[in-house]
Amino acid sequence: MKYTVLVDVRLRSGIADPAGATIERALPALGYEGVSGVSVGKTIRFTIEAADKKQAISHSEDLCGAFLTNPVIEDAEVTVVPGGDDL
Amino acid sequence: MKYTVLVDVRLRSGIADPAGATIERALPALGYEGVSGVSVGKTIRFTIEAADKKQAISHSEDLCGAFLTNPVIEDAEVTVVPGGDDL
Repeated sequence: MKYTVLVDVRLRSGIADPAGATIERALPALGYEGVSGVSVGKTIRFTIEAADKKQAISHSEDLCGAFLTNPVIEDAEVTVVPGGDDL
Repeated sequence: MKYTVLVDVRLRSGIADPAGATIERALPALGYEGVSGVSVGKTIRFTIEAADKKQAISHSEDLCGAFLTNPVIEDAEVTVVPGGDDL
């Protein structure tokens, strides 16, 4: 059965986020006030073939640990839904 | 009042996604079968000061259109919740 997977990758707290810091620093000069705590992450979406939801989650987490993310500096949250639903 | 904002940025359909294509091509060689339709996007999280939720959404969408995203090739989905909740 096919499952749709969303992997939400964020830098762990305490890890420097240069992209977020750059956006935050640029905002006031561009006329946008009142924005703080900017952080930038990434998402990976895919479809995975698995026997059941549990297996889909476990395979996706394996993928994350193996090479989609860097567990030393990043946290990954895996969301799995059956079928071709959008995530 | 403070609002927590999550901007989910994805490439529009039909736009080439080299990062996603590279991951998808690499997977079988790394021993992961059954994964397809890989796409890579980005997320931007921040806190915004606004009078109400409507204003928070409208300011965040302004930000996206102005320089957080490239509307020619990317779609952005803005989610706003009050306070310091995690998104």
